[in-house]
Amino acid sequence: MKIEHLVAEIRKKKSFLCVGLDTDLEKIPEHLLKEEDPIFAFNKAIIDATHQYCVAYKPNIAFYEAYGLPGWKSLERTMEYLNADYPEIFTIADAKRGDIGNTSTRYAKAFFETMDFDSITITPYMGKDSVEPFLEFEDRHTILLALTSNEGAFDFQTKKLEGEELYKKVLKTSKTYKGSERLMYVVGATKATYLQEIREIIPESFLLVPGVGAQGGSLQDVCKYGMTKNVGLLVNSSRGILYASAGSDFAQIAAVKAEEIQKEMEHELERYFLS
Amino acid sequence: MKIEHLVAEIRKKKSFLCVGLDTDLEKIPEHLLKEEDPIFAFNKAIIDATHQYCVAYKPNIAFYEAYGLPGWKSLERTMEYLNADYPEIFTIADAKRGDIGNTSTRYAKAFFETMDFDSITITPYMGKDSVEPFLEFEDRHTILLALTSNEGAFDFQTKKLEGEELYKKVLKTSKTYKGSERLMYVVGATKATYLQEIREIIPESFLLVPGVGAQGGSLQDVCKYGMTKNVGLLVNSSRGILYASAGSDFAQIAAVKAEEIQKEMEHELERYFLS
Repeated sequence: MKIEHLVAEIRKKKSFLCVGLDTDLEKIPEHLLKEEDPIFAFNKAIIDATHQYCVAYKPNIAFYEAYGLPGWKSLERTMEYLNADYPEIFTIADAKRGDIGNTSTRYAKAFFETMDFDSITITPYMGKDSVEPFLEFEDRHTILLALTSNEGAFDFQTKKLEGEELYKKVLKTSKTYKGSERLMYVVGATKATYLQEIREIIPESFLLVPGVGAQGGSLQDVCKYGMTKNVGLLVNSSRGILYASAGSDFAQIAAVKAEEIQKEMEHELERYFLS
Repeated sequence: MKIEHLVAEIRKKKSFLCVGLDTDLEKIPEHLLKEEDPIFAFNKAIIDATHQYCVAYKPNIAFYEAYGLPGWKSLERTMEYLNADYPEIFTIADAKRGDIGNTSTRYAKAFFETMDFDSITITPYMGKDSVEPFLEFEDRHTILLALTSNEGAFDFQTKKLEGEELYKKVLKTSKTYKGSERLMYVVGATKATYLQEIREIIPESFLLVPGVGAQGGSLQDVCKYGMTKNVGLLVNSSRGILYASAGSDFAQIAAVKAEEIQKEMEHELERYFLS
C-alpha cells in the first residue's frame, strides 16, 4: 500500500486506530472453540465489527506461531480475508524479525509476498544489512523498533551511545539506509514526551504507537508531540478491544470500544486540522 | 538438554561443529524436487550423513518461514526426525526472536514445546523483560545475539554505550537477568580477537560462532581466544557443507566436508586438552 492511500483512509475514517490481533485461545469466547478454526472465526468477527473504526490490523505473529501449523493456517486465512474483503486496510506483521542479507530477504518474502502484508516490524540490533533487504520491496513498509514501551527499554535503548540515546542513534542511522523512505518506527506511548525529540529527527515518518490505554499512555500527549501534517501516527489497541467481552456479544462490544477510541481520535484530528 | 550432555557429546565426537540447516529449494539437488517434501528429504539425507561429525543442528527459521505452511511442516518434520532418531544432538532454532513478556513466552512455547528445540537465538534490543521469559524453561537455552558477523554489526553493536561497546553492555547486563545460567551468546568469528575481551566478561558461557570458513574467520583463532575448560564453543557451518555438491552425491560430499571440519576441531581439542 502506498502511504497516500493510508493517509486518505485515515482522513476518510477520521481514525488512526490500529487493532492488534493478539488472538489467544484462552481468552476468546468459549462458544468459538467449537469452530473448525476458532482463531480465524474470532478474527473474522472482530474485523467485520471494527473495520469501520480502524485503518490497520496488526497480528502479533507470536500468538499464531505458538500454535504451530494450525496457528500459521489461521494467520494465512486472516490475511486472505483482510486482503480480499478489506483491501483498503493497512496490515502489519508484528514479527520483530531481523537477520542478515539474504536471510532477511526470506523473512521479507514470507510476509510481503507469501502473506501479502503491507508492513512488518523489525529489530535494529544487527544494523544496515539486516534492515535494507526489507526496504527493497516497493509499496511495503518496514517498521523499525526504536523506543519500545516495556521496562526493558531502559536496559539499552535509552542509554547513551556515543553521546546520544541508542534509540536516537537508531533513528538517525536508519535514515542513511537505502530505501529509508519506506521506514516507519515503533515508539512507545508511555514516553510521549520523548516524541518531541523524536520528531526533530524524523519529522514526517509514520510512528506505530503501542501502549495507549491499558499500558498507560495518553492519546492527547501522543497527538500533541507526534502528529504531522499527514497525521503520521498509528495508535494500537489490542486487549482493550478484543477482550472487552467474553460473551456471545464480544464482536459487538469490540465495535463499541473501537468506536470510543475512534471518536477520541476524531476529536484530536479536528483539534489539529480544523482549528 | 543439559549442558553436561552437550559437553559429553563434544568430548565423545571430538567435535563442536554445528551444521546450519539453511535449506534452500533453489540450491538443493534437482532430483529431490520430485519428492513429496523436498526440504525434509534434503535435511534427512544431510542429517543421516553428517550426524557423526557434529553435535548440533541449527535450522535458520527464515528459510522455512519463507515457504509458508509447507515450510513450517518441513521444519516440524525435521525436528521430529532429529528428536526421535538423534536425541543426543543439540538443536538450535535460529529465529532471532524477541518480544515483550507474555508474547516472548509464546515464542518460547512455539520453539521449546511445540517443536521441542533445545535452544533459540534471541535479539537483545528490548532488554530484560523480552529475554527473561525464555530463561524460565528448564534445560532449554537462550542464545543472545551479542556481536554478529555482518557489516551492520558496526552500526550499533561496536559503538560505545556509556563508555563500553554495546555488545559488552549486552553481555554484562544479561548476566543480571533471572535464569542467566541458561544463556549462551552469538559471537561472530570475523572478530576473533574480540573473543579475549568477551571471555573476561563471560568466562564459561557457550558461544555460538557463525562465520568460520566462507565468511573468513579462523578456527584456530576462535579456539585460541574462546575455548573454555568445557570447550564452550559451537562453531557453525552451513553452505560449505550443505551445498558442496549439487549432484546425487550431495549427502556423501556433505559428510566429507563435515568430517574435514571435525578433524580440524579434533586437532584443536587435542592441542588444548592433551598438551
